[in-house]
Amino acid sequence: MIVRPRPSWVGLLFARRGSLMPRIAGQLFLVFALSCAVVVAHGTLFKWKVTLTAAPFSLMGVALAIFLGFRINASYDRYWEARKLWGGVLIETRNLARQALTLLGPASPAPAGTSAPAIGADVREFVLALAGFAASMRNQLRAQPADAGLSGLLAPELLQRLPGLRHAPQGVGLWLGQRMQAWRTQGRLPPELARVMEESLDRLMGLLGGCERIANTPLPFTYSVILHRSAYCYCMLLPFGLVDSIGWMTPLVVGFVSYTFFALESLSDEIEEPFGMQPNDLALDAMVVGIESSLRELLGETPPPLLQPDDQFLLR
Amino acid sequence: MIVRPRPSWVGLLFARRGSLMPRIAGQLFLVFALSCAVVVAHGTLFKWKVTLTAAPFSLMGVALAIFLGFRINASYDRYWEARKLWGGVLIETRNLARQALTLLGPASPAPAGTSAPAIGADVREFVLALAGFAASMRNQLRAQPADAGLSGLLAPELLQRLPGLRHAPQGVGLWLGQRMQAWRTQGRLPPELARVMEESLDRLMGLLGGCERIANTPLPFTYSVILHRSAYCYCMLLPFGLVDSIGWMTPLVVGFVSYTFFALESLSDEIEEPFGMQPNDLALDAMVVGIESSLRELLGETPPPLLQPDDQFLLR
Amino acid sequence: MIVRPRPSWVGLLFARRGSLMPRIAGQLFLVFALSCAVVVAHGTLFKWKVTLTAAPFSLMGVALAIFLGFRINASYDRYWEARKLWGGVLIETRNLARQALTLLGPASPAPAGTSAPAIGADVREFVLALAGFAASMRNQLRAQPADAGLSGLLAPELLQRLPGLRHAPQGVGLWLGQRMQAWRTQGRLPPELARVMEESLDRLMGLLGGCERIANTPLPFTYSVILHRSAYCYCMLLPFGLVDSIGWMTPLVVGFVSYTFFALESLSDEIEEPFGMQPNDLALDAMVVGIESSLRELLGETPPPLLQPDDQFLLR
Amino acid sequence: MIVRPRPSWVGLLFARRGSLMPRIAGQLFLVFALSCAVVVAHGTLFKWKVTLTAAPFSLMGVALAIFLGFRINASYDRYWEARKLWGGVLIETRNLARQALTLLGPASPAPAGTSAPAIGADVREFVLALAGFAASMRNQLRAQPADAGLSGLLAPELLQRLPGLRHAPQGVGLWLGQRMQAWRTQGRLPPELARVMEESLDRLMGLLGGCERIANTPLPFTYSVILHRSAYCYCMLLPFGLVDSIGWMTPLVVGFVSYTFFALESLSDEIEEPFGMQPNDLALDAMVVGIESSLRELLGETPPPLLQPDDQFLLR
Amino acid sequence: MIVRPRPSWVGLLFARRGSLMPRIAGQLFLVFALSCAVVVAHGTLFKWKVTLTAAPFSLMGVALAIFLGFRINASYDRYWEARKLWGGVLIETRNLARQALTLLGPASPAPAGTSAPAIGADVREFVLALAGFAASMRNQLRAQPADAGLSGLLAPELLQRLPGLRHAPQGVGLWLGQRMQAWRTQGRLPPELARVMEESLDRLMGLLGGCERIANTPLPFTYSVILHRSAYCYCMLLPFGLVDSIGWMTPLVVGFVSYTFFALESLSDEIEEPFGMQPNDLALDAMVVGIESSLRELLGETPPPLLQPDDQFLLR
Repeated sequence: MIVRPRPSWVGLLFARRGSLMPRIAGQLFLVFALSCAVVVAHGTLFKWKVTLTAAPFSLMGVALAIFLGFRINASYDRYWEARKLWGGVLIETRNLARQALTLLGPASPAPAGTSAPAIGADVREFVLALAGFAASMRNQLRAQPADAGLSGLLAPELLQRLPGLRHAPQGVGLWLGQRMQAWRTQGRLPPELARVMEESLDRLMGLLGGCERIANTPLPFTYSVILHRSAYCYCMLLPFGLVDSIGWMTPLVVGFVSYTFFALESLSDEIEEPFGMQPNDLALDAMVVGIESSLRELLGETPPPLLQPDDQFLLR
Repeated sequence: MIVRPRPSWVGLLFARRGSLMPRIAGQLFLVFALSCAVVVAHGTLFKWKVTLTAAPFSLMGVALAIFLGFRINASYDRYWEARKLWGGVLIETRNLARQALTLLGPASPAPAGTSAPAIGADVREFVLALAGFAASMRNQLRAQPADAGLSGLLAPELLQRLPGLRHAPQGVGLWLGQRMQAWRTQGRLPPELARVMEESLDRLMGLLGGCERIANTPLPFTYSVILHRSAYCYCMLLPFGLVDSIGWMTPLVVGFVSYTFFALESLSDEIEEPFGMQPNDLALDAMVVGIESSLRELLGETPPPLLQPDDQFLLR
Repeated sequence: MIVRPRPSWVGLLFARRGSLMPRIAGQLFLVFALSCAVVVAHGTLFKWKVTLTAAPFSLMGVALAIFLGFRINASYDRYWEARKLWGGVLIETRNLARQALTLLGPASPAPAGTSAPAIGADVREFVLALAGFAASMRNQLRAQPADAGLSGLLAPELLQRLPGLRHAPQGVGLWLGQRMQAWRTQGRLPPELARVMEESLDRLMGLLGGCERIANTPLPFTYSVILHRSAYCYCMLLPFGLVDSIGWMTPLVVGFVSYTFFALESLSDEIEEPFGMQPNDLALDAMVVGIESSLRELLGETPPPLLQPDDQFLLR
Repeated sequence: MIVRPRPSWVGLLFARRGSLMPRIAGQLFLVFALSCAVVVAHGTLFKWKVTLTAAPFSLMGVALAIFLGFRINASYDRYWEARKLWGGVLIETRNLARQALTLLGPASPAPAGTSAPAIGADVREFVLALAGFAASMRNQLRAQPADAGLSGLLAPELLQRLPGLRHAPQGVGLWLGQRMQAWRTQGRLPPELARVMEESLDRLMGLLGGCERIANTPLPFTYSVILHRSAYCYCMLLPFGLVDSIGWMTPLVVGFVSYTFFALESLSDEIEEPFGMQPNDLALDAMVVGIESSLRELLGETPPPLLQPDDQFLLR
Repeated sequence: MIVRPRPSWVGLLFARRGSLMPRIAGQLFLVFALSCAVVVAHGTLFKWKVTLTAAPFSLMGVALAIFLGFRINASYDRYWEARKLWGGVLIETRNLARQALTLLGPASPAPAGTSAPAIGADVREFVLALAGFAASMRNQLRAQPADAGLSGLLAPELLQRLPGLRHAPQGVGLWLGQRMQAWRTQGRLPPELARVMEESLDRLMGLLGGCERIANTPLPFTYSVILHRSAYCYCMLLPFGLVDSIGWMTPLVVGFVSYTFFALESLSDEIEEPFGMQPNDLALDAMVVGIESSLRELLGETPPPLLQPDDQFLLR
């Protein structure tokens, strides 16, 4: 478990972890510069006084905040659902591994007892292929090569076939099902217990389908566009509405308002597509290593080292 | 997986993808023209000064935004639930296909082993009928002919019967159940494992029922009417409330407020009925092809080409 | 599937479908008349000037909107959950019907094959009793006579017993379970497959329990009272706060504000009890006919005609 | 089903059902008296003019409403989840009763048929113990004596043991499981069908655990404290902010604002602990009787009379 | 069940239970002092008059409240989901214990009957290991030594192995599965009933995975940063906006606003990581004891004393 230091309230003001500044600095500067220009020109545009007051901005500000709040909510729901799905991958692969270790009858007659039986080569191959499934799922969601990071986890003949498949993870799933079929036909897995594993595999494939859904269907694009336009109009017009009453404080206030709106919009944009490679996206690489670690420990092997967060305590 | 380019913040201001402008341009123009007329007439109507100030609009603006926010939320929930249901169709058809490929005993005695057995004609017919189920479901939800796009997926005698059925997809479901019954009576599918497939089929039919629910029961119509009326009254009266304080900026502010309200209302209206053919509705055609692609790859066949998005990166 | 015409934005302003006007007209008129009186009296009450300004209404307006928004949300959740439960009744009755048609072994030896076997009289009786279950559930939720609309669906000896039962739908459920028991003891339904049907029946009974929960437990009544009182005080005091600044526009603005509040409160009130007979309640009659239609088609019979919406596109 | 009269809009203003007035009258009076004093003193406190305007209250009012709205939401979620759990108890006890009535083989050989077999004494004892489980659960949640209202429902030797148990309802659950074990070892319940009942019992015990969770873990207490303090400061300072502009209307407006805030806070407080005995809490007694009524009718016995609501249409 | 006294409305104003004051006192003092300085300097900063009015704060205040409301919501969801997961641990360990007590056939032939059979040593070891699982889960979530508080609950050879494991609780889960395997191979647990226990164990492991997910994935850190910065800027600038209109009331109002914002932010911060040791975090120690108490009572043993809350009615 990664212990992330929680900054104090002062530290939090200057925290850089997963900062969005690089993405919004240009826009913030533009709005700030415009505000200064408006103050210098006393709110006139080409000699024509722009007669705006704070009242209309009060009207729109709340509406914008409500609509932006909805977008943050919807984006975060996508992010958290994606995280739940990946949490489910850890759960189901672990369950399938435990089931393979305890439900299977012995390949060759052995004295039964309460002590754990030795682990057969085919069971080990099955358990490692579960870690391979997770890695393959990550590869598909991140549009990486289908066999990236899979050597040592999948059986060679399966590994070779992956790059030729359009839906590689389901190919791994089919292989897992065929392995279970073999155990059943060999009489090592009675049908009543085979159902337990089949249902776990069904759920595992369901998690894959859930992630594909999130990856393939974005939030309605038009919604982002409407919000983006409204927020920009708002921040661009705001200096004209404030300059008469607060003068040189206008750039500060406008910058402050813009920072909140732009940063939240930008964060929504990042977590809306949770499988990407941006700083606030899900740490799929770390999760795949965590799953392998968990499964190898179940096999009684030394687990691989976990990924370490970078200097900003972020994982990929 | 379709990689959609994400526009920069400038590009986002001018994005046309799934634009709602054609739907709301007339209304926006009307409000804009009214605002100009109000400014020219200095807020008088038939020589009578309309004594409105910004205060009442501040009262109502927030309320409107909250109620509209609720409608967006409810509409998006319908949209996303519909998407989840279709994601479930992909999951369950895949699971049923994998089960048919691995749970069935051989039609004729064959040497069992870990290698995948050859796929029988009846299994292939079953797997393709799963893709046919998805297509049939789309046809019903979009009120298209019951056999559109189904040739090659369903057995001919089933395909012929479909146009005469009022509930065509459930007819396909019954056919799938009868096929499983035949396997059971032939002794190829032991009862313990038959349950796995029966339960997957139950879930698949449940997804159909869920989509029918969304298609048949709209949001309470009265709610849309109340909101629509309130938003229009608001935008029509707003110029009278602003003209005295901001003069010629009135049309700009009113246009801006109206754009946000009308566009969000219009988007809610589109995604509220997610199975339609409007730009922001669900891409059912693309999903049906995706399901067929997935199932054919499980059969070891070459999957059909996926649908390509149009120049606005939209799919049907 | 009912294709409801979607009115244009102009049509939407004057739509009558499910209108709430009859319910709120009296209250609206009262508030409107009061406003006019306040304007005529220049905001004095019994010669005493009521010194209200718009500021306190701004305070309370947002709070009221938030609380009312919560109520709409909670009412709609009840409505939509009730709809989901009824959607579940369609799903589970269909599943039970399909199971009865495909899981049962033949009553008398018959040649097994992939073709559908002829449907036995006891199976037909079982499937029609499923439609009877739905009708019985509607009768209970709407406090109608326990045997209304049930002739032809339930076995006569069961139908006779219904009016004497306090919990009639569960009596139908018990009958369904006894029928399954008979098949099991006759050896036509092996225990492994009996479980599939038992679990479907469990879920069906769970849907009944869910609807009873919604019908028996309203929203906390006190919540409605608090909101109702606050909204009325607000609308009654509002004219005094506005009359000094907007004069004769007061009745218009107060009417507009009141319309939005009263109409939303009234709509919440209707959909809060979704099993009633008001225009915006659930169309239970139409759903019961839809379930019967679906089940009869599974039996290969001609389904009954669906209910047609009235001139306002509403169903009962 | 209890038909509650729905008051008209006038009746709603004066409804007393579940009134919170007794709880908040003292606080309301205090705030009202303070407001009058402030008006009399023209907003001075110990000769020092309190220079407050409405502006800061506008700032805080919305924030308070949002935070209070969140608390209402969270409290109502607890209330409704508790109601769902109790609805589940009705569902699962009914299902277990139906299963006991239809899944068990005969105790002694009897002619099998479609007619319902006579109900054995042990089955009757089991079904009544289900009603006893619900009563025992209520006793625990309300901290009542463990055997209150249980005579006639539980077997005497079990009833005697209850007061000595810290977790009485789980003792009843264990007894139910042992009874099922006896049927299994007697060969009356085949293992495949025993699973159906075991899973129902698991769910029933899960509902107990869910209620214990709600009863044992309140909303974070600090949250209530923060809100309570903020609401009180707000209402205490408000007269100073309003007195200069609205004079003698101050007590009315402050009373109105305080009523809404205090009443909603008080209601949240009641429904936050839904198993209590306050007027707006869940009617556990009525639900326990409803469960017994339902189970006795399944046994073919005359159900006990349902509890009748009091003159305010409230149940305990 | 712990009966927590509910303070009266006066007591609530001064409640110390779980107080956040120690965490926010410094910040509150800073803001208060700044406000006083601003009043003394009449809103000038280094001789330069800061020309701020209340209007921009009205704009931002609502937006801040909405965004902070979202954060409270998301944090509370994490807290409550974590509580549900731990509630599930109680439920599933109880169910597994009941199953071990009633589903297992006798180790040695014994007369079967309706009376409860004596509990074997291996069953007792299994049931206590379930309590050990819960304790091990707590140790992992709180980064405590893997064997803390486990002596007497786990078999010695398992206990010794725990500190060497990276994923200790899953090691306990594997041991539980192996014990069930032994019962199966001994013929004491028929495969049909073994499934019930396997599925309960799967769910138990799923609860572990859910807690790991919450512990490993915080809310997007950037979100906290944006909110924190905005709230601080807001509270720091607010005195300048208020000083001209409300003079010496500025420190009071600013302190009041800051208290609400800081306290809610601080509370969100605490419950966002619900497995910590802060006053408002989940009482894992108490829950582990509660689970042991419940399981020992099922075994017929005297349960350990429950943890008692401290003088603030808080548990750890």
